[in-house]
This record gives sequence, C-alpha cells and structure tokens, in this order.
Amino acid sequence: MENFTFYNPTTIEFGTDKEQTIGQHLAAHGIKKVLLCYGSDRIKRDGLFATVSQRLAEHGVAFVELGGIVSNPLISKVREGVALARAEKVDAILAIGGGSVLDSVKGMAAGVHYAGDVWDLFTGKEGVTTAVPIFAIMTLAATGSEMNCSGVVTNDETKEKFFISAPSLFPKVSIVNPHLMQSVTRDYLVYSAADVIAHCIETYFTAAVHPALQSRIVESVINTIIDSTGTLLEDPANDAARGEFAWAATLALNGLTFSGCAGFSFPNHAIEHSLSALFNVPHGAGLSTVIPAWMKWYHGRNPAQFTRFARQVFGVATPEAGIAALEAWFNKIGTPTRLGQLGIKESDLPAIGENVQMSVQRFGLAEQYTPTVVSEILRHAL
Amino acid sequence: MENFTFYNPTTIEFGTDKEQTIGQHLAAHGIKKVLLCYGSDRIKRDGLFATVSQRLAEHGVAFVELGGIVSNPLISKVREGVALARAEKVDAILAIGGGSVLDSVKGMAAGVHYAGDVWDLFTGKEGVTTAVPIFAIMTLAATGSEMNCSGVVTNDETKEKFFISAPSLFPKVSIVNPHLMQSVTRDYLVYSAADVIAHCIETYFTAAVHPALQSRIVESVINTIIDSTGTLLEDPANDAARGEFAWAATLALNGLTFSGCAGFSFPNHAIEHSLSALFNVPHGAGLSTVIPAWMKWYHGRNPAQFTRFARQVFGVATPEAGIAALEAWFNKIGTPTRLGQLGIKESDLPAIGENVQMSVQRFGLAEQYTPTVVSEILRHAL
Repeated sequence: MENFTFYNPTTIEFGTDKEQTIGQHLAAHGIKKVLLCYGSDRIKRDGLFATVSQRLAEHGVAFVELGGIVSNPLISKVREGVALARAEKVDAILAIGGGSVLDSVKGMAAGVHYAGDVWDLFTGKEGVTTAVPIFAIMTLAATGSEMNCSGVVTNDETKEKFFISAPSLFPKVSIVNPHLMQSVTRDYLVYSAADVIAHCIETYFTAAVHPALQSRIVESVINTIIDSTGTLLEDPANDAARGEFAWAATLALNGLTFSGCAGFSFPNHAIEHSLSALFNVPHGAGLSTVIPAWMKWYHGRNPAQFTRFARQVFGVATPEAGIAALEAWFNKIGTPTRLGQLGIKESDLPAIGENVQMSVQRFGLAEQYTPTVVSEILRHAL
Repeated sequence: MENFTFYNPTTIEFGTDKEQTIGQHLAAHGIKKVLLCYGSDRIKRDGLFATVSQRLAEHGVAFVELGGIVSNPLISKVREGVALARAEKVDAILAIGGGSVLDSVKGMAAGVHYAGDVWDLFTGKEGVTTAVPIFAIMTLAATGSEMNCSGVVTNDETKEKFFISAPSLFPKVSIVNPHLMQSVTRDYLVYSAADVIAHCIETYFTAAVHPALQSRIVESVINTIIDSTGTLLEDPANDAARGEFAWAATLALNGLTFSGCAGFSFPNHAIEHSLSALFNVPHGAGLSTVIPAWMKWYHGRNPAQFTRFARQVFGVATPEAGIAALEAWFNKIGTPTRLGQLGIKESDLPAIGENVQMSVQRFGLAEQYTPTVVSEILRHAL
C-alpha cells in the first residue's frame, strides 16, 4: 500500500425523487442565487427544469440559466459561464445533466475568482485556489464527476482537451436519481459503460503498486457495469439495474479505486482525448476503440494483472483471452472498437499521434507514448 | 437499490509516518487545546506519545491527557472525559488507540455540550446535536470507527452496551499508519479479523434489498481480510498486508457497504454485546463465536445469499459448506467459536437471552430475537 490521503466531502443524494431536495440543500448552504447550467432543452420538455425551478422558488433561491453545453464541452462555453456568473453575482452553480455539464461547471466555478483567462487553470499555468460552490443533478451516469473534484474541457481553438482538479471543486451535493437516466439513449448507455470501465482499468493495469483490495473493488465495479448494462439493454426501465450502473459509475472515480495505488497513469484517456478533440467522437466510443488496442500493445508489461482480469471478469485463463472477451463484449453491446466506426482513417494516425503529445506531456507520459508508439497502438484498432 | 444519502467528510491520512501530520491538521482546524485520550501506557513506552506531544507543541497546541480507556469501554470513563474536557475548556479531543478509545471519545465529544448525563445520548433518550471536533491516530484496525460517526460503550452499572451515532461525530481527520499496528497482539489481530467480517455480513445476509455491487464489495473486503490475516500470522512485520487489513477494516464500516441496501439488521452484534457486557469477552472473540451459530440458525431464511457467500468467499457450493468453511477458518486463525472458550456455560444462556433483549429492542429486533430464540442460536456454539 502506498501512502494516501482520502478526502471526499460530497453529499450524494441517491434515489427516486431526490431532485425534489435541491431547494432545501441550496438553502441549507445559504445560497440565494444560482447559475443553472444544462445541455439540451430536453430538461424543459421532460419536466425536470420545471420541478427544479419550483423547488428553488420555494426556498427563496433565484436563478439565471445557461443552456447549450455540448458533450466534449468547450472552454468557450466555460468562459461564457464565468462572465455570466460574475455579472449576475451568483452564490453557486447548479449543473443539471451528465459529465459534460458538470465538468464545464467546475471550470466556471474555478474561473469566477480567477482574474486571468480560465483556460490557464486547465493548462496548469495557474492553480485553482477558491471556487464558487457546486451542486449537481445528474441525468447520465458515466464520468464520476458528481463525486470528484476534476473536470475535462476542450479548447475549441487549439484542440487541446485538458483537465482541471482541486479540492474546492468537489460538488457540495450531487443528486443521483437513476430514474432520471431512463431517457439516456442506447448509444450513450453503452458509451458510458465503456467510460466507467476505462476509469477503473487505467490504474488497475498501469500501477506499479496495486493492492489486492483495490483490484477486487475494480473487478466489482466492472462486473456490475457488465451485468447492469446487459439488463438495461433488454429492459431500459429497470431502475434497479439503472441504480447499480449509476452507483458503480460514481465509485469508479471518487478516489476509492485509486487509494493505496502508486505509479499509475491514464494513457487510454490521453489517447482518446485526441480522438474527441480532433474528430468530436463521443468520449466513451473513443475509449472502447482505444482500450482493446492499447491492451493488445501493453499486456506483456503486466501479465499477472491481465491474467487476473481475464479470470475475475470473464472467467477465461489468459491475458489474450481476457482482451478478446472485453472486445467481444464491446461489440455485443454496440460500442465501437474500430477507428473506421468513428470515421477515422489510417492516414489520420500521424495527426492523432502528434495531438496526443499535448496530453501525454501533461500526464507525464511523453517518453513512453511518442507519436510512433501511438500509431502502433491505434493500428490494432484499424 | 434503495434510496440513500452518502456523506462521509472524514479525511483519512493513510500510511507510513502519517502521525507526524497531526500537529498541522489540528492547527489547520484552529485547535489550541486538546484532550488527548488513550488506553494503556504502551504509547508512552513505544514513543508514539512523545512524537505526538512534540508535533502538538510545534504547532502551538496544548493538551491534557486521559489514559486508562479499556476495551469494551465504559460510560464511567466517558463521564470522566466529559468533565475533564469541560474543566480544561479543550477545543477538540484526540484519540490515540483502537476502536475502544475512539468510541469513548465520541461519547465525550457529544457529552461536552449536553447538560444531562451523557448516557442519555446512548439510550436514545436525547439526540446528539453538536459535538467537539474529533481527531484520531489509530493503533489497531478493526472497528471502522475512524471513518464513521458511531460508537459503542458499556454502562458498567446496568451492563447495557449501547451505541451513539450522529453526523457531528465523524472524526475530522483520522491517521491510519499500518506500521503502528505491528504491536497488535496475535489474539487481537484475529479478533479484529472476526470483527471486520461481522461488520460486513450482518447487512449482507439480513438485508431485504442488497444490490449485487454491494455484495461484491463485501466479498472484496472479506477476501482481503482472510488473505491479509493469513499473511500477518506468518509475518507480522508485513506492512503491505497490514495496510490492506487496515483499509479493508475502514471500508467495511464507513457507509460504503450499506449504500443502497434496505431492511437489514445487526443481530450478531446485538447478541455479542451481551457477551461482552456480561462476561467482558473481547468483542471480536464474542463475534467469532456468535456468527457461525447464528448462520446455522439463519441460513434457511436467505439461501441464495448464503450460497453466494459460500461460492465467492470459500469456493464451495452450499450454504452449509460456506458456514463450515468460515468456522474452520476462525478455528485455524485461533479466534473462539465455542462459548466454552469464553468461559460461558450452558446454564448462562437464559441470562444472556434476557440481557440481549435490551439491545434487540434498540435494534428493533425484539420480536424475532426472544430469549428462547437467542438460547436456540447460542446452543449451536456450545
């Protein structure tokens, strides 16, 4: 076990009708006015916006709204949010949506009190010191953003996809009502499954120190995602499976699976961020394409853990069989495993390899993941 | 999945030398004077007391001390701590020890601002409103008290063993350095193993709603305890195994394993509390005796989960085989499984059954666990 600090002060309100509590939570934190952020207008059509507005009004919380946050969210929108939050002098920001909305809100919350351009906080030019309090109502489970202090945003000009992270960015309260996630499309359900699995296996496979307890917890999360995704593809209205999927997604990236691990990195995310930034592919779809390719390239470096994965997740005996089983499962649920499914050609590989360098430098992986190596990895996904 | 709220604001400082950070944590919370509580004088002989004193002095934190807290801690000592904390006007209480010290400190922290007798807060006559901030340095891993807001104390006059629980009783910071736990005796190591397993399986077996994810996490904890206990009995200096044991113990009772579960109860704890209260047996030793007996009596009520346990923990096929395997493992590591090993005779059963009634009433289990039923259960442990 490596030394670690575990600190996660976010309150999770999980379950049916929990969005009804948002007014009282904001009031309990002394919030008088929020910036309410969301993606599409779907929340206005399905009644969630009306419900939230009503609960805010009942607790004397005013709001201004900012919609139109897209998946693979953009720094231009974050800047818009920062300006609006300042102009309207809000006390807090409320995200309604999935990881893209919440990640954007983290950028806004950090940017409000920063005098320079908020992108500086993503490039690491400046650190986050204080932030406006964040609250969230989740309508999609995937990123774990509801219970961590990080967010990822793309710079629409430079095509960089960078992250921000600071203890002040833990949401105060995140509401996770699995029932609200019934409207997630079949495509985004399976992309989300790939995303959650990606969050666990990066550390699981790359860590120099990975305690058995953490391996077991990761396998618990992955097996739960596999089972619940299968159930939901058959029966999208199954709230029990929706709940297991959602809580597994939260636990995959709330700090629990990393505690006591050391010497790990996020190469699949680094590579995928370039696919998203350059070709605007959904993050999960990019991950399900990168992961099997990366595993084929990487497994010889950690054969014991790949054997463990094969046995504990798919009940097969060898690293190769485990990788094949994961790729087959991605194919079965319908998330891409080939670059061609994302509209990416072999001739794009050099440009991807170059773009990845911006991410791997920030992840400290530049020596290992050169453009040549990235091309070699992605050739497994042609 | 049942609706739940997850909230756990405790900072865990885990790993080698983390006790060196206690001064800065207290200072960061604005603490000027603490009541420093501990059990035996061992911490004075092994240097931990000196280390802590020095770190406090460096950060301008004064202290008064209260030693002599015993296992199965007593309300009389809690009262002494409340009086001392008031007289000395401390800002916080610092526990150095295991669950008994920390549980006592929770009582003291709650009692300082309560005008009546602190035992009222254990009987449920009054609720806990505010509490003095709690900090902890753990020298034994078992109870999970370092990352939850509950504590159990015995009334030395009435022989009741009751609990206290309130969000204000979460420790602000708990330091878990596995290396400090090397001095735990072989007996207390195996009792602790039984205690951690007990924390998981009560919910696992009794819950009306127990999501598969939670079952998997419980099995992860139990398998880790089994493996790490085996390693530590061979090699007590193995800090990696000591660390896995300690973190598994924390996760077993920090709210994680219960999230989304419903309709569960703690009958083994209710019964064991009477063994501790009447015969002063170590809590874990009482649990390892009660659990197999209770399982033999109970398993027909939840055969699917007992089959799952048998398969996932011991790789055997039937509930009976799983129970036998657990009992055999308790015997192998050397924690009691028979009442005779605790000095308890068949003729004591009626008195135990009567005493249990005080606990089961508080747990809401009075109808199911009558004195006759308790005797029937414990006869399996004769």
